[in-house]
Amino acid sequence: MNFVITVGREYGSGGRFIARLVAEKLGIAFYDNELLIEAAKDSGLSPSIFESYDEKQDGFLGGSLGMYSYDMTLSQKVFLAQFDAIKKIASEKSCVIVGRCADYVLRDFPNVVNVFICAPMEDKIKRVIEYYGVKPEKAASYIVKKDKKRRGYYNFYTDMDWGKASNYDLCLNSRVGIDECVDAIVGYTKRRFKLD
Amino acid sequence: MNFVITVGREYGSGGRFIARLVAEKLGIAFYDNELLIEAAKDSGLSPSIFESYDEKQDGFLGGSLGMYSYDMTLSQKVFLAQFDAIKKIASEKSCVIVGRCADYVLRDFPNVVNVFICAPMEDKIKRVIEYYGVKPEKAASYIVKKDKKRRGYYNFYTDMDWGKASNYDLCLNSRVGIDECVDAIVGYTKRRFKLD
Repeated sequence: MNFVITVGREYGSGGRFIARLVAEKLGIAFYDNELLIEAAKDSGLSPSIFESYDEKQDGFLGGSLGMYSYDMTLSQKVFLAQFDAIKKIASEKSCVIVGRCADYVLRDFPNVVNVFICAPMEDKIKRVIEYYGVKPEKAASYIVKKDKKRRGYYNFYTDMDWGKASNYDLCLNSRVGIDECVDAIVGYTKRRFKLD
Repeated sequence: MNFVITVGREYGSGGRFIARLVAEKLGIAFYDNELLIEAAKDSGLSPSIFESYDEKQDGFLGGSLGMYSYDMTLSQKVFLAQFDAIKKIASEKSCVIVGRCADYVLRDFPNVVNVFICAPMEDKIKRVIEYYGVKPEKAASYIVKKDKKRRGYYNFYTDMDWGKASNYDLCLNSRVGIDECVDAIVGYTKRRFKLD
């Protein structure tokens, strides 16, 4: 039986790292943005879609929607290609998928656990300074900007509200620690799909 | 070591029932609205506060705030007496506390796990028809009204947003089943406080 864990997360919450550790513990595949782009390429979608994507990322829904119509179209193509990749992967194997509205994309799939990871602002600030090299004085506004973008993607592509508990099966605050969250997700998934 | 589990919940999600089962499984005390009123009375707070409370409940933040100033004052007194009771109880023993903004009241206490339980609307409708005797044709609007009230209390007394994942340690969707949620909360709590 295939199952999929989707992980939404606040920027700096450690959600991506938690997701990777969950995949490792459960011995299943892990997909984030980059790996989904590779998967979309591998699945035979036109490479031309991705050609100039990387350097355009910052324009992606970043500001006023009307101002970036070229980027929007390009980014939307990439997003939609990733959606197809997500569905294909989910039908083939068990995996953990980070971001990309995977919860929404897989809403009609069986055996999906939708997880959201959040954290207190002070923890997120520490994490982005330590791991992403963001300057301390810019950390808070950077996090707000990043999350605004994530909320933007999510609310744009889905009919739901990013970070609202009722969208997900399981939400965890990483203030208790990364390992604690990993254990909670692994425990929940094992019980849910009777994996032991 | 004392620990407290606070449980916020959408109306009809089964959250109160889940909370009671968690308390039973962990062998700790359980407090809901009624039991907190009793506790507030027992702790020596003036019984006069509670005298005409019960029949006034429906007016409590139910509509426009300006219209119910007498009820507001009375209900606020009861609420604040419950806040005192919550703090007293939390400092004395391990327990599960449902509702009453207990997460906010205990925000400076150590060893508190803040849980939120939600559910899909169709599940909540089934539950309120089956367990609370609400008429099927009125169930959806009744649930919305009840949750509006809960959100009202919460956002009024706290500086947070009811049902938003980042307010809580652990949010669970009861669509997977009551027992699953109970197990997840018990498992999380045991790991968190190293109870095994």
